[in-house]
Amino acid sequence: METFALGWIDPPEGPAVELLDQTRLPAVEAVVTCTDVPSLVDAIRRLVVRGAPVLGVAGAFGVALAACRGDDVAAAASAIENARPTAVNLGWGVRRALAAYRQAQQDHPDNPERAAPAAVVAEARSIAAQDAAASAQMARHGLSLVPVGARVLTHCNTGALVSGGEGTAFAVILAAHRAGRLAKLWIDETRPLLQGARLTAYEARRNGLPHAVLADSAAASLMAAGAVDIVLTGADRIAADGSVANKVGTYGLAVLASHHRVPFAVVAPVSTIDMDTADGTAIEVELRPSEEVTSLAGAAIAPAGTVGYNPAFDVTPPALITAIVTERGIAQPVTEGTLRLLGEGPSSSDSPLAATYVERWGS
Amino acid sequence: METFALGWIDPPEGPAVELLDQTRLPAVEAVVTCTDVPSLVDAIRRLVVRGAPVLGVAGAFGVALAACRGDDVAAAASAIENARPTAVNLGWGVRRALAAYRQAQQDHPDNPERAAPAAVVAEARSIAAQDAAASAQMARHGLSLVPVGARVLTHCNTGALVSGGEGTAFAVILAAHRAGRLAKLWIDETRPLLQGARLTAYEARRNGLPHAVLADSAAASLMAAGAVDIVLTGADRIAADGSVANKVGTYGLAVLASHHRVPFAVVAPVSTIDMDTADGTAIEVELRPSEEVTSLAGAAIAPAGTVGYNPAFDVTPPALITAIVTERGIAQPVTEGTLRLLGEGPSSSDSPLAATYVERWGS
Repeated sequence: METFALGWIDPPEGPAVELLDQTRLPAVEAVVTCTDVPSLVDAIRRLVVRGAPVLGVAGAFGVALAACRGDDVAAAASAIENARPTAVNLGWGVRRALAAYRQAQQDHPDNPERAAPAAVVAEARSIAAQDAAASAQMARHGLSLVPVGARVLTHCNTGALVSGGEGTAFAVILAAHRAGRLAKLWIDETRPLLQGARLTAYEARRNGLPHAVLADSAAASLMAAGAVDIVLTGADRIAADGSVANKVGTYGLAVLASHHRVPFAVVAPVSTIDMDTADGTAIEVELRPSEEVTSLAGAAIAPAGTVGYNPAFDVTPPALITAIVTERGIAQPVTEGTLRLLGEGPSSSDSPLAATYVERWGS
Repeated sequence: METFALGWIDPPEGPAVELLDQTRLPAVEAVVTCTDVPSLVDAIRRLVVRGAPVLGVAGAFGVALAACRGDDVAAAASAIENARPTAVNLGWGVRRALAAYRQAQQDHPDNPERAAPAAVVAEARSIAAQDAAASAQMARHGLSLVPVGARVLTHCNTGALVSGGEGTAFAVILAAHRAGRLAKLWIDETRPLLQGARLTAYEARRNGLPHAVLADSAAASLMAAGAVDIVLTGADRIAADGSVANKVGTYGLAVLASHHRVPFAVVAPVSTIDMDTADGTAIEVELRPSEEVTSLAGAAIAPAGTVGYNPAFDVTPPALITAIVTERGIAQPVTEGTLRLLGEGPSSSDSPLAATYVERWGS
């Protein structure tokens, strides 16, 4: 697998994208094999693969799939990009792959059918590798925010399942564990799809972290009891003003953290920052099917015909966010200015500039 | 049935307490028949019957069951009172029934075996009837807090299933519906046991209310969108300072409501007010089994062995509560003084004094 959650199969066995089916974890570790773009779009929509960073990788490999099959690559790119509306990384990965495809066509006018698909596959692999490197840098920077003996609360799933590497917020938590700083990981179960109970608990067990799962609504009294030292979440899209779209429930946690004076930090690669989206009001929030709320694992949990209101995301304004941790450093306070500096910085995450940001805005 | 959720069967068919099994609603409408105190204690513990007001009725009928069977009534009373620690009404109903039993024994020294059981049954029926009357009065008083066109958010289940009448918060919501004021009822699903999705949605459908169910964590963004005009919840115990213990998640809603300047009102009979509990720190919060979080309807939703942190309740401080609505009037602001006046007022809910409270502290 190119990443923990996603693999690429070259011709002649492929082309195909293999996905660890996240809808069936933790009970079953099954692989879904997508041999064409419609099946990949369906898998993305059904959340077989999900999580902002790996959606960028999946989007790029989707373009590779179309290119290797000889499909209409532009149409495929558009279909993949529109599979889900909120995560900016999906479109970002698709556009990077499409640009690589077009560049290869220009560079090899004599043999575009051979060169362009190979170039897209290489670009998709490069996105996965960069994502892994970004994970490591986010972990390094984010660790500076985590105190010794930390009780960390997290929401949804942000680990190896969503990343080319060890993830975003979860990578920071893993770094804290390895540094001996993690006393407890509190995992919001994350209704309706239970990414916390199913997936983050699965990753916590794999890595031997001290952890417990709780109903999302129990987080408030945990904070009131002084049992949470920092909240760490990922992000699906960060607007230019620092507003963060993430899994529904994130905004409520941020309000609660602010009320209890608990630091609230978002961990995300700079590819999640969308300077073309001015602020939170401009972020489209995906409304998902009613049945995800009114049933669970196929069983009804509400009377037949009950309407479930099911926004997949919510938007947290920058005033409630202590810091945004990226692979290039930490934006703290969260403002358009600090985000712009991070976004415009050099792409190498070991640059002196990144260190400067940490010093200026870090813990 | 004496109430919607609970019935009493006299000898010779009984003695028995019949309970509508709330753990199986809405899929199945099944009745659990308890013919002795241990089976009733088990049913209370398993939440076959739950909800603060009806637990007072159930507790009293439990004492009646022991009295009719000729069991050790004091031991039975103690076992029932300790079935669950947080709801004050349970012990209150038990003690009222026990007092009636002892009074009848004193009053009929010639024939206590016959008179005392009958007196306890009568007292338990009287508690149910008073609860129904209190429901109606809470609805009347609470309606004054609900604006025309209200979008009301509620948590857990507070209707006919938990009451001798139409409930607490749900009775107010029904009154608003009948008065043409209810535009929408937002129902928190209320994890882990889904009393909102299962039971409140069931009661909303029965009564034709416009409603939708949401994941608990979606309430925050609803408030941010201006889609909630008032939050109404019940209470399991109200301390002397006005701290309210209620279903886990209530405290977080109160913080969110305060942040968004949405009124947050608690509806509960005065029997829920426990002047012997000084404040929130003195309220014992029931920790329930881990499996209620890590599994659902028998199916695991987290990896095997995962620990679930599962407090059944949380405590909301009075500063976050706009008003406490009782059958005797409204405490607003919520202080020890306003609660004491309500608690010490005459028991007749149509008293002039009750009206005075409403004028002084009402909407």
